[in-house]
Amino acid sequence: MNQLCFGVDIGGTAVKIGLFRSDGTLLHKWSFATKRTNDGKDILRDVASFVTEKIEEYHLKKEEILGVGVGIPGPVKEDGEVLELPNLGLASFNIETELENLTGLKIKAGNDANVAALGEQWQGSGKGFKNMLMITLGTGVGGGVILNGKILPGSNGAAGEIGHLLVNTEETDRCGCGKIGCLEQYASATGIVRLAKRKLKSDTRGSSLRDLQDISAKSVFDHAKRGDIIAAEVIDQACKYLGMGLANVAQVIDPEVFVIGGGVSKAGNILTELVEKHYNRYVMASLKSKIFKLAILGNDAGIYGSARLLLE
Amino acid sequence: MNQLCFGVDIGGTAVKIGLFRSDGTLLHKWSFATKRTNDGKDILRDVASFVTEKIEEYHLKKEEILGVGVGIPGPVKEDGEVLELPNLGLASFNIETELENLTGLKIKAGNDANVAALGEQWQGSGKGFKNMLMITLGTGVGGGVILNGKILPGSNGAAGEIGHLLVNTEETDRCGCGKIGCLEQYASATGIVRLAKRKLKSDTRGSSLRDLQDISAKSVFDHAKRGDIIAAEVIDQACKYLGMGLANVAQVIDPEVFVIGGGVSKAGNILTELVEKHYNRYVMASLKSKIFKLAILGNDAGIYGSARLLLE
Repeated sequence: MNQLCFGVDIGGTAVKIGLFRSDGTLLHKWSFATKRTNDGKDILRDVASFVTEKIEEYHLKKEEILGVGVGIPGPVKEDGEVLELPNLGLASFNIETELENLTGLKIKAGNDANVAALGEQWQGSGKGFKNMLMITLGTGVGGGVILNGKILPGSNGAAGEIGHLLVNTEETDRCGCGKIGCLEQYASATGIVRLAKRKLKSDTRGSSLRDLQDISAKSVFDHAKRGDIIAAEVIDQACKYLGMGLANVAQVIDPEVFVIGGGVSKAGNILTELVEKHYNRYVMASLKSKIFKLAILGNDAGIYGSARLLLE
Repeated sequence: MNQLCFGVDIGGTAVKIGLFRSDGTLLHKWSFATKRTNDGKDILRDVASFVTEKIEEYHLKKEEILGVGVGIPGPVKEDGEVLELPNLGLASFNIETELENLTGLKIKAGNDANVAALGEQWQGSGKGFKNMLMITLGTGVGGGVILNGKILPGSNGAAGEIGHLLVNTEETDRCGCGKIGCLEQYASATGIVRLAKRKLKSDTRGSSLRDLQDISAKSVFDHAKRGDIIAAEVIDQACKYLGMGLANVAQVIDPEVFVIGGGVSKAGNILTELVEKHYNRYVMASLKSKIFKLAILGNDAGIYGSARLLLE
């Protein structure tokens, strides 16, 4: 018999909630604004009362509900302990115990990047693969490792932190994390803009990018697709470092597939093709010919993955 | 009740065999020369008849023997399929099926680097840790990933191939694998000698290394310990690249402990201290303060780990 589970994705601005059948069908989804008050306790109360209301509204039986999975934008320990998240106004607490007390339902929590990876592996581009790396290219670069169909959290909850892989020892700018030459400095949206501005300054050739008031990662991709050489070189450079980083990941965990998501991945196949080209230059022979795919669940990956936590 | 298992380590020159109690006690160990004839079939026959003889000699009951674990110097698939290993004169075959037919015992096989890692995790320096990376610094650089107490083989059997992590994009020499800037080019015994020779050529300062007829990794460590500046700089450079590589590994799998073994690790604590120093420079804040240990099982790690395969 198919059972039901809720998947919750707690983000900085919005909380997303989905109701799923255990076969992976998304039945309903909702979202509401994140309340950063009361040490984060208000977020939990909002989630609990929202779930309780929906159970009543749809006349769901408690025995058919497997529980509530929750993705959190920070490290979560195996027992559900969440460390302080100042960005969200959250103090340290055990999210599983607290939400269980509020809802009477089984709760499972995970880090948002890991949970998004699990979502793509369950019902997205990673479907059918047991071992994958999900790469999220947004303002920063995040990652999640799925091995044998399960999230690898890591002993400090920091597995899959591929945004801070060292890929360039010659870099002079510093990454937000304090290190130098992190993958995030090249392959994030911010990183692509940084590379473009740097190139436009050091390179005297003409470029349609010079006519823009404001350069975004999307505009660099768009101009590259329309034939602008400087833009194309910037994209190639970003993909070089991403390919190099993924080659190093492959030498450690040897996954079947790399799934690339996040805002930057909207650029489409140009991204996976260039990353694959550079990956193959930097990886050892027996690890060539991996599969590179674009993520397909978009912003829903988190609710899919957190629901999936209940089915492990 | 304690049961028994055999651990076999098939190497290029010798086959090592250990008889273990399931609590990890090594009762007996033996070795004999590897016979590279008859497509590797002779090795299997030798192993099977050796094990059978020992069972008779010690009057062991078949029901108290859990089986025979075997470490192989190449990739082994999950079903026991071994790919061709020209170095050993081995054709492709299923080692588990063939040895089961020859012995009537349960057989489990794994890659030698992975099995050595499992051995150290079971009864060596990794005891008490569930997530570790074992690094073997010998002629080359090998590695094995243990997650949740089990080997991570990887989808192509190439997980933990950290010798071919890219750590230096500015390198001009080529690695044996065909790539450029692999960790093995710096942190293996061969790599340390290469770095020393290069340094002695490009640097005009005096060095006690210049008096040697033949430089080995051991001599570079010895001269560094005795205060030779050039030797110390070479060791520091090797450890810099190793620390950098391990920082990247940590960002992917976030292990609890790094265990360093192989001939080069006989240099002792100078190695773990320098590697840790450089690791902390290259890793993100939440991944600092990992544990770095020297391996303690030496050449026996393989028989320990292959015996452990039966207990999973």
